[in-house]
Amino acid sequence: MDVTNRIEQALTDAIGLAAVTGCPPRLAEAMRYAVFPRGARVRPRLCHSVAAACGEDNPAATAAAGAALELMHCASLVHDDLPCFDGAATRRGRPSVHKAFGEPLAVLTGDALIVLAFQTIARVNCAPDRLAALTMTIGQAVGVPFGIVAGQAWECESEINLAHYHRSKTGALFVAATAAGAASAGADPEPWRMVGEKIGEAYQVADDLRDAAADEDEIGKPVGQDVANGRPSAVTELGIDGAIFRLQGLVRGAIEAMPPCENGHELRSLIMSEAKRLVPAKLAQSAA
Amino acid sequence: MDVTNRIEQALTDAIGLAAVTGCPPRLAEAMRYAVFPRGARVRPRLCHSVAAACGEDNPAATAAAGAALELMHCASLVHDDLPCFDGAATRRGRPSVHKAFGEPLAVLTGDALIVLAFQTIARVNCAPDRLAALTMTIGQAVGVPFGIVAGQAWECESEINLAHYHRSKTGALFVAATAAGAASAGADPEPWRMVGEKIGEAYQVADDLRDAAADEDEIGKPVGQDVANGRPSAVTELGIDGAIFRLQGLVRGAIEAMPPCENGHELRSLIMSEAKRLVPAKLAQSAA
Repeated sequence: MDVTNRIEQALTDAIGLAAVTGCPPRLAEAMRYAVFPRGARVRPRLCHSVAAACGEDNPAATAAAGAALELMHCASLVHDDLPCFDGAATRRGRPSVHKAFGEPLAVLTGDALIVLAFQTIARVNCAPDRLAALTMTIGQAVGVPFGIVAGQAWECESEINLAHYHRSKTGALFVAATAAGAASAGADPEPWRMVGEKIGEAYQVADDLRDAAADEDEIGKPVGQDVANGRPSAVTELGIDGAIFRLQGLVRGAIEAMPPCENGHELRSLIMSEAKRLVPAKLAQSAA
Repeated sequence: MDVTNRIEQALTDAIGLAAVTGCPPRLAEAMRYAVFPRGARVRPRLCHSVAAACGEDNPAATAAAGAALELMHCASLVHDDLPCFDGAATRRGRPSVHKAFGEPLAVLTGDALIVLAFQTIARVNCAPDRLAALTMTIGQAVGVPFGIVAGQAWECESEINLAHYHRSKTGALFVAATAAGAASAGADPEPWRMVGEKIGEAYQVADDLRDAAADEDEIGKPVGQDVANGRPSAVTELGIDGAIFRLQGLVRGAIEAMPPCENGHELRSLIMSEAKRLVPAKLAQSAA
């Protein structure tokens, strides 16, 4: 089975836990709706590539770790879309969960997906010390003090710490994706964190570039939002060319940060192809 | 250290994870506010008593399990109080979290507490197979298909399954409290589930009795809500005397369901004293 199918299968298996008699059927439906159809599945793909680089020996553990990362990502989207945050009416071209199922079920869907991520890891048959490493890695990426929930909470402070904000809100799940990939293969996750950190920053810069220079059709959401909302952005800070230069440096940095490993070519190509995919078409030439 | 202090210390240690530079300070404050000052800590006390009954050999594991149960309970109260659910303005005689900190932070506080519960278990130094058992037990009690989140979600269905509703919304954390107490001591959690189930039902009946027959001063919240809202209740179903009889049967059943264990007297006294504590004063004589 290729990686795409492994990722979808693992998510289908995880969500299947809700598809039993005795589980409220609309909650089960809302959870499925929040996770399918698939997005880019960036974090699980990264996790799988790192596991392969580390000589993956327990594919079920990799798949569970990848699914847990994606479930956490989906949970954060559901809660971030709530009226008390972004109040987003649509997500990926269709109604957001709270629009489709109501606000109470949106809150509960996010909660249930967070718990399901941990259940998914705990259910896998792996060496018990890997379970501890995976649970810690996923917990750190989502909770306090530096996970995505903490990142989102910076928006509720009167003074925002931008470095912590970005590192937590966007970076934490990328760091977890590389660390969990290593842990699921029984490798030491620590040296892989820096790789995830660079990749997370690269996505942030690419996102800023897309907001500044892509067409709305290309990225499927309104552009120019950073300037319109006075949000900090690599483009307003460095200009288009400067941001592209920064992106290239981060991509190179991510590859250079990879610790010695058996089988790193898949991860290297993933990083390179993502860097290409995410740069807006009209900038692709100057980025090449 | 006595059990009360052990429980508070474990919760203080857990919440301390948020009290570091780089964690958004208002999130840290809201999390602390949601957990302290203490409520009755019923679930961790039950967990500690079962661990003692099973010959507790790793006090840190018991304490972590107890803290995780209470963090989950507090998280559910924070989310249940949100305007899209009960919209409760007060909790334990002071503003609810969303009133004190705003709705966005209330959503994030609940999320962070759920994650913190799993982090708390994963950080404890215990035999790795206990970690798996504890993570599964806590996950089942909170998530899908039958945990407290699923229980709350029954309120969003057009047809409610009352048996599943009560078992999930109230019962699941009691079952987890007994199962986690056993698991933290390295005992088989399964035979302890029935004890938690009976105790959970007993609390439900006691709650119905208090709503029907206590004074508002005695229980610190409005009474007569079940009848006013047409909610199912053991008292409307069985009458006061019938409900007391039912409660007594459940208390006896919980004690009889205890599997053979080294040191069960503490748990037996806890069950008996709770049964007394929870019956409204004016009914205490007929219940004796």
